[in-house]
Amino acid sequence: MAEGGPLFVIGGHEDKGGEREILCAIAEYLDGGRLVVATIASHAREGYFESYCNAFDALGVADLVELYVKDRAEAMDGSKSQMLENAAGIFFTGGDQLRIVSQIGDTPLEAMVHDLHRRGGVIAGTSAGASAQGETMLITGAGQESYRIGDMHMAPGLGLIPGVMIDQHFAERGRIGRLLGAVAHNPRLLGIGVDEDTAIVVKGEDFDVIGAGGVTIVDAARLSHSNIAETEPDSVLSMHDVTLHALSAGDRFNLISRRPAKHETAD
Amino acid sequence: MAEGGPLFVIGGHEDKGGEREILCAIAEYLDGGRLVVATIASHAREGYFESYCNAFDALGVADLVELYVKDRAEAMDGSKSQMLENAAGIFFTGGDQLRIVSQIGDTPLEAMVHDLHRRGGVIAGTSAGASAQGETMLITGAGQESYRIGDMHMAPGLGLIPGVMIDQHFAERGRIGRLLGAVAHNPRLLGIGVDEDTAIVVKGEDFDVIGAGGVTIVDAARLSHSNIAETEPDSVLSMHDVTLHALSAGDRFNLISRRPAKHETAD
Repeated sequence: MAEGGPLFVIGGHEDKGGEREILCAIAEYLDGGRLVVATIASHAREGYFESYCNAFDALGVADLVELYVKDRAEAMDGSKSQMLENAAGIFFTGGDQLRIVSQIGDTPLEAMVHDLHRRGGVIAGTSAGASAQGETMLITGAGQESYRIGDMHMAPGLGLIPGVMIDQHFAERGRIGRLLGAVAHNPRLLGIGVDEDTAIVVKGEDFDVIGAGGVTIVDAARLSHSNIAETEPDSVLSMHDVTLHALSAGDRFNLISRRPAKHETAD
Repeated sequence: MAEGGPLFVIGGHEDKGGEREILCAIAEYLDGGRLVVATIASHAREGYFESYCNAFDALGVADLVELYVKDRAEAMDGSKSQMLENAAGIFFTGGDQLRIVSQIGDTPLEAMVHDLHRRGGVIAGTSAGASAQGETMLITGAGQESYRIGDMHMAPGLGLIPGVMIDQHFAERGRIGRLLGAVAHNPRLLGIGVDEDTAIVVKGEDFDVIGAGGVTIVDAARLSHSNIAETEPDSVLSMHDVTLHALSAGDRFNLISRRPAKHETAD
């Protein structure tokens, strides 16, 4: 994994009116530079940009511009790409992750996002904007129940973080079942579930956890059995020997070795 | 673990009007014998007994009696214990698991329940009646969020299944976080999360999974780190190297070796 700028993967509903721990961390990296707020994931984007203007204003981020593409043609023609040329970072808001990749996937605009990352810019995304950063995205799949075979749509993500699948609103929407089902499809991908108002900050091979909630890692590298390909649709998943890590603020995790590092405590 | 009769640990909301897979399995073991329906967990028990009479009637279980104790004195005086003398099984309904153990724990009535188990009788319980069968019970603890240090009440259970903690309504109420928190307290106990309309049927060292949902096993035997004792109350749990198994109908699990056996598939 080539080291580029930091990637902020936020589980949704990050604090925008209080201490704003996650937005603060982003503001610090921007260091006064321009932040592009990409509302591409949203079908009805009214208010999104304004709410981030308000939230970032008090944090010294004054140069914000909105990036929206109404269709794929706009992402192809290069006019929107200029917006990223002088940017210090981009923040993908929530909505539908499939809108992000279907509108900008394999376009000059997407190339500019990868370029921004390579030259050290900040890439951030919340909710749908978090999911889009992985190699593969979960699109649908029921929460609040154990995974049933066939109950899942996935799609290729932007691939900013190779080898991972990200799920968001994780504990709040009871999504452990669908993340287990997702990684059962191919244990090569590591499953990362990010709670609301919580983020992983990826730098090179490692990420740190920040924010108010938890991050759940589902690693199926040692999987000894699953019924994902064997059973009738609607059968309940069976999956033996999954390694799970519950992480919280202060934890670090290496994406290559798939090992957590010890939690830093005050004592 | 001495082999006694089968223990049915049901995650709540078992089917009572359709195919009744779980109640059928119980009825088979009863083999025409008396079933005591213990509504002890309930503060307002009206309707519970009647609903099980209706549900079991079509399954050939005609001899049902209700066991309720309004206070601990009733469980002490022996009058209720007679009810279990000629019973083939007991079924603990839902409600509050703390009511079960606080009313009958360490009474002659509880001794009769253990005796029924030893002589091969069926012990079944749903929801609160499931939790009560473990060595330690979860009493409270938030669902739908990652576990926060201190956010848990536990209590000793009836101990019919030593070495385990059982949680119910598991996927439906997003309880993975609280079960992880519970086992972090002492990895000696195995965490078992049972979904609604799903049961584990324990016979000796092994259990089988039956029903419509999943069973989640949380095994912290290889835990390399947790912050459960280190951190400020309200901190989010950090827990490295948990082994998780997702089980479904047809899976078998050994409680001593903590190993799942392969899922039996049709092909």
